[in-house]
Amino acid sequence: MKNVVFPKGFQAGGVACGIKKNGNPDLGFLQSHPPATAFGAFTRNTAAAAPVKYCREVLASGSKVSHILVNSGNANAATGPKGYEDVLTTVSHLKNAMRIEGGVLICSTGVIGEPLPMDTLKKGIDLLCGKPGPTSDFSSAIMTTDTFAKIAEVTLNLAGHEVRLGGAAKGAGMICPNMATMLAFMTTDIGLESGYQSRFQDSVERSFNSITVDGDMSTNDTALLLANGASDVQYSSLSSADQRLFDAALMDLMRQLAQSIVRDGEGATKLITVEAVGAVSEADAKAVVRAVSNSPLVKTAFFGGDANWGRVLAAAGYSGAALEMEKLSLEFCDVKVFENGVPLPRDEEDLAQRMKAKDVSVKLNLGLGKFAWTYWTCDLSYDYVKINGSYRS
Amino acid sequence: MKNVVFPKGFQAGGVACGIKKNGNPDLGFLQSHPPATAFGAFTRNTAAAAPVKYCREVLASGSKVSHILVNSGNANAATGPKGYEDVLTTVSHLKNAMRIEGGVLICSTGVIGEPLPMDTLKKGIDLLCGKPGPTSDFSSAIMTTDTFAKIAEVTLNLAGHEVRLGGAAKGAGMICPNMATMLAFMTTDIGLESGYQSRFQDSVERSFNSITVDGDMSTNDTALLLANGASDVQYSSLSSADQRLFDAALMDLMRQLAQSIVRDGEGATKLITVEAVGAVSEADAKAVVRAVSNSPLVKTAFFGGDANWGRVLAAAGYSGAALEMEKLSLEFCDVKVFENGVPLPRDEEDLAQRMKAKDVSVKLNLGLGKFAWTYWTCDLSYDYVKINGSYRS
Repeated sequence: MKNVVFPKGFQAGGVACGIKKNGNPDLGFLQSHPPATAFGAFTRNTAAAAPVKYCREVLASGSKVSHILVNSGNANAATGPKGYEDVLTTVSHLKNAMRIEGGVLICSTGVIGEPLPMDTLKKGIDLLCGKPGPTSDFSSAIMTTDTFAKIAEVTLNLAGHEVRLGGAAKGAGMICPNMATMLAFMTTDIGLESGYQSRFQDSVERSFNSITVDGDMSTNDTALLLANGASDVQYSSLSSADQRLFDAALMDLMRQLAQSIVRDGEGATKLITVEAVGAVSEADAKAVVRAVSNSPLVKTAFFGGDANWGRVLAAAGYSGAALEMEKLSLEFCDVKVFENGVPLPRDEEDLAQRMKAKDVSVKLNLGLGKFAWTYWTCDLSYDYVKINGSYRS
Repeated sequence: MKNVVFPKGFQAGGVACGIKKNGNPDLGFLQSHPPATAFGAFTRNTAAAAPVKYCREVLASGSKVSHILVNSGNANAATGPKGYEDVLTTVSHLKNAMRIEGGVLICSTGVIGEPLPMDTLKKGIDLLCGKPGPTSDFSSAIMTTDTFAKIAEVTLNLAGHEVRLGGAAKGAGMICPNMATMLAFMTTDIGLESGYQSRFQDSVERSFNSITVDGDMSTNDTALLLANGASDVQYSSLSSADQRLFDAALMDLMRQLAQSIVRDGEGATKLITVEAVGAVSEADAKAVVRAVSNSPLVKTAFFGGDANWGRVLAAAGYSGAALEMEKLSLEFCDVKVFENGVPLPRDEEDLAQRMKAKDVSVKLNLGLGKFAWTYWTCDLSYDYVKINGSYRS
C-alpha cells in the first residue's frame, strides 16, 4: 500500500526529529508536483489551534499547495499569539529549505498548551530535505498513540485514463496532556476545480464528521484533499456519470479512513455501525445516530455484548428528533428486536453470538419519513478509562 | 432524618412486594393530609414512560394530590398502550384499597420494556394498606442500585411559624436491562398557589437539571413537590423577603438531593463542581458547563487526579458558546492554571494533592459578560464501565 503517494505526482516521507521523547517518527511531509488544488475541512472548535487558523487562511487565498508538513507530539494549541508566529516561522524555514514557491499547509497533533520546540522542528525539516532524507513512512510519522497506520487507496478508470486516490489518517490517540485529534490527508491525480469544495465538504460530513469515539471534538481536527491533475483527467471534463464514479470513490476512500480511526479508537474492541432510516429530515436522522453513538450507556452495553435496546431507545428519545414510539422499529446485528413500539420475542443465544463480532450494527427505522444517516462509533471499555485516566508522566 | 415526612401532614412507607427478585423494598407510598398542591418537572425524553404521561395529565388537571405511589424494579417504559392501561389499573386499585378521593401520582423506575407485574403490584398495594403496614422507609423503597438513600430536610421560621421542607431522591442506579432514572420527591407544609410552578421549574433547572452522570437522559425522570399548607403559612401571604427565604430553602434542599445523586453516580469516586462565569448569556454559561461536565475525557482525567486543563478548554471550545481564548481563565480546585489565553506556572505537587479530594472543582471565567451557571458531575471510572458493561443476567 502506497497510500498518499499512490496517485501520480506525490511524494512523502517522515523522520524522527525529537519532538516525541520516545524516539518515534514525529515529522512528515507530503509533496505534490505539480502543485495541487487543495480542499480542507477543519474542527468547529472555537479553541482551534494555530495551524488550523493558518490552513484556513491559505485555502481561503485560493493558492495551489505543493507541500504539507505535519508534526506529531505537539498540537500547538492554546499557545496564544506565539503559537501562530511559530507556524509562520515553520513555513518560512520550510520554504527556504525546500525552495518552495507555492502554498504550504501545516498540521500539528499532540500535547496542547506547550510551545512548539522550534529548534528541534527546524532540524527535523533539514533532515527531511537532506541526505539520506526521510527514514519513515508519512502515515507513521503522523501517528500519536494510534496502534496501526490508517491508509487507503482506490483506482478508477475514467474517460480512458487511470485515476488514483490515496489517503492516510491518524486517529484518537493521546499523549499527555492531551486530546484526541483526527488528521486525514487525501491525494488524487485527477484535476479538480475549486468549486469542488462543497462536494468535498459533503463527503467529509458523511465520513469523518460521522464518526465518534467519545464525542470530544479536538482543537486540531483537519481533513485535507490535494488534487494535482497529474493523471491528465480533469473532473470538469468528465461525463456526469463519471463524475459520480469519482465522487463515490472519494467517499469510499474517506469512509475507509474514518472507519479505521474508529476501529483504533482508544480502548475500542468493536466497530459499531449506527444507522437511522425513515426520519422526517436529514437533521433528525443525524441527531438520532449521533445521540446513540455518543451514549456511554449504549457504548458500555456493546462492550458487554448486550443488545440493550432500551438504552438505544432512550438515546433516540433525547436526541431531539421527531419520534413516535408506535412507529419505531429497531434491529441489532440484523435481528429485529423492537417493532411498532413493542419488544419482539427473539433467539437470545443467536443474538448474543452476533453481538460478539468485531463489527456490529444497530439500525433504527423511525417509520416517519424518507431520510437516513449513518454514524460509526466504538464501544466504551476499561481501557478507555485506563488510557485517559492515567496521570500525566 | 425524617426526610419526606418531616413537614407536617405527611406519611410515607414502603414494602418489599416481589417486583425486585432480590427481595429488597420495591414499593413506596407518600401521603399528604390535607391533600397538597402538586408541582412537577419531567424528563424531556420523547420516549417518556407511561407513568410520566399519567403524572403530566394529573398535574395539568390542577387537582390536589393526596398520594404518590412509587415502584422500583420496573420502569413501565417502552410498554406501549398496555403500559398506560396498567397505570390506570394501578391508580384504581390504590384508590379502592386506600379509599382515596383526591389525585394520585404514580412513578416507576427499573427494567424497561417489560410489562408491570400487576398481580405482584396489587398485592404490594394491599400490603401497604394492611396490618402491620409498611415495613421499609420510603427513601429505601424507591432505590434501584443506589448505594445510599438520598434524603434532606430544612426548617425555616417564617412570619412566626415553623415551615418545614423534606425530600428523598433516587439516582443513577441500574438494573438490567436498564437505564439510569432520577426520581425526586419534595414535601413542605407551607401552602403554595399553582402559580409557584414557574419558580419550582427554575429551581429544578438549577438543581436536578444541572447534574449529569453520563449525559444519558432517562425515560422516567421525575421531580415532584407537594405543598399541603399544614403549617398554616401561605406563601402568598408572606413578605417578599420571607418568600425569598422559602425559595432559597427549597433550592438548597433540591441541590442537596441533586448533589447526593451525583455523589452516588455509577462508579463515581468524586463530586465535581463545574462553574462558568463571565459568559455573555445564561445559555452560553450553561452550554459550557454542560459540555465540560459530559466530556468523557474530562471525567476520566478527574478519575486519574489530573488537572487536565487542555481537555476542559477543548470541551468549552465545542460547546457552541462565545469564547475568546485571550480573555479566558481557568481554575482547578481554586488554583489558577490558565489566564488570558496563557498557561500559568504552578505548584504541581500542591495541585495534585488538591485533586485527590472527594470534592473537586473547575471554574472557567470567560471574561466576556456577567452570566454564570453551575453544574455538578462525577468522574468516569472503571466501575462505570463494569456496572454498565455487564451482561444482563
